[in-house]
Amino acid sequence: MNFKEFQKKYTPQINSFLEEHLINEIVDPKLSKIMSYSVMAGGKRLRPLLFLATLHTLAKPITAEEIRIACGIELIHTYSLIHDDLPAMDNDDYRRGRLTSHKKWGEAEAILAGDALLPMGIQWIAQGGKMSELVEIITRAVGPNGMVGGQYLDIDSTNNDSVKDDAHFINKMEWLKTGCLIKASVEMAAIYGQATDNERQALADFSYYFGRSYQIYDDLVDVIETTEEAGKATHKDEAVGKNNTYTLLGLEASRDKLRKMIADGKDSLADFEEKTLTEFFNIYEKVL
Amino acid sequence: MNFKEFQKKYTPQINSFLEEHLINEIVDPKLSKIMSYSVMAGGKRLRPLLFLATLHTLAKPITAEEIRIACGIELIHTYSLIHDDLPAMDNDDYRRGRLTSHKKWGEAEAILAGDALLPMGIQWIAQGGKMSELVEIITRAVGPNGMVGGQYLDIDSTNNDSVKDDAHFINKMEWLKTGCLIKASVEMAAIYGQATDNERQALADFSYYFGRSYQIYDDLVDVIETTEEAGKATHKDEAVGKNNTYTLLGLEASRDKLRKMIADGKDSLADFEEKTLTEFFNIYEKVL
Repeated sequence: MNFKEFQKKYTPQINSFLEEHLINEIVDPKLSKIMSYSVMAGGKRLRPLLFLATLHTLAKPITAEEIRIACGIELIHTYSLIHDDLPAMDNDDYRRGRLTSHKKWGEAEAILAGDALLPMGIQWIAQGGKMSELVEIITRAVGPNGMVGGQYLDIDSTNNDSVKDDAHFINKMEWLKTGCLIKASVEMAAIYGQATDNERQALADFSYYFGRSYQIYDDLVDVIETTEEAGKATHKDEAVGKNNTYTLLGLEASRDKLRKMIADGKDSLADFEEKTLTEFFNIYEKVL
Repeated sequence: MNFKEFQKKYTPQINSFLEEHLINEIVDPKLSKIMSYSVMAGGKRLRPLLFLATLHTLAKPITAEEIRIACGIELIHTYSLIHDDLPAMDNDDYRRGRLTSHKKWGEAEAILAGDALLPMGIQWIAQGGKMSELVEIITRAVGPNGMVGGQYLDIDSTNNDSVKDDAHFINKMEWLKTGCLIKASVEMAAIYGQATDNERQALADFSYYFGRSYQIYDDLVDVIETTEEAGKATHKDEAVGKNNTYTLLGLEASRDKLRKMIADGKDSLADFEEKTLTEFFNIYEKVL
């Protein structure tokens, strides 16, 4: 199945599961509404699709249990967006063309919506997978040595000129902020899908390249879309003193780095017959 | 072993584990310091002690793995305190005589310290227990239908006079805010310690009474200590328009309710030979 077919088949299943279970499984209708507002705001469902496509690559069936795990990952991703947008953090008013959670519902409500989505996401992963190993992978990926550690480096280094040219620091920060959760989505599927040692290594390599590429892509989208829309080469990250791959390397070197990562990532999947995962890299083409 | 002996034996083990592993297992020393600041601020370690005392009641050995699970619960409890104190929530400057996390380190740092402690706590529970059931119990207890749901009801009802005399609402809110996590600490030990069905039911009853009592006790501590120190019968909850058992029932009826709950809680443990858990109720005596 190619990426577009896969996406077309499973995105609606992911969206239906999320919509239905955020209503059915949350007792307080107001809190449910606040949580659903952010989860159902759109989004590519990239992480759940990666989890499912990795299972598909390993020829494992996808049933309601696997959809539950996949959707658990999306809840966790959504929590991270809500908290990143908070006034004390990136202070964003809009996301995907809608008011951010704290602008729509209030700051306490947004903090709590995130605080509720994180354990509920982990709960879905535990319920769907019945394996404590999956919980160990996801909690490590979003904890102090993963996503939250990356976000901490980000706020700690914003407007700090001493890290502006520090490639090691910026690579580490971007990896933690974005790469870790993407890698965990693939790693959970490899464990859950009982991949062989060779398959696990190949998938680990793929997920490293895919996850690292994602942040470079995301930084580029920001610049390129702003450039086209506003007719100037500045973007928000730069304006507020953020450090990232784009501010480190500039446009063309960032693109080169992304191209190289895509090639390496595709290579790492060479031994799999099923090509769905390889085609995930197609989404990066619009910035190249 | 009586409660005092149990506490004296295990509190130092809990504190050593927390102190050591918050340094060893968190790569970023600054983030580790921010997290440790709140975790090591003192506190009774009530929830980890309850977990361990339940295992002891079931005659299960307590090794490093069980201490890890117990400490995971404390990390999660600490996360909830940090987020409850935030400016957008209860806006508290001091806790246990020290500056709260956001006053000491900044608001973004406090949000992230909490966001890091929650998954790390769940990770420790998964690592120590190797049972996805424990993860299901803890995530349910702190999610939208548990602790965070209670905190949401609290912020949603503050200064809302329509719930002031609504005993059902106040009981539910207080149960979710405090009772759920206490109950989960006992329930995890019952599952992990392979309690029989009868034992599980008795422990579930105990943890219900103990958990519900705790919030009544906590509200009373607040009033009584303020009364003695400041010479007046007001306290912060009342001043900021919070609704709780004390504001609902007043001093003597709250005490009566607490006494009744303690008696029922002790009854539920009647069939266990080991009396450590029964003696946990002694901590409530100072408000009676």
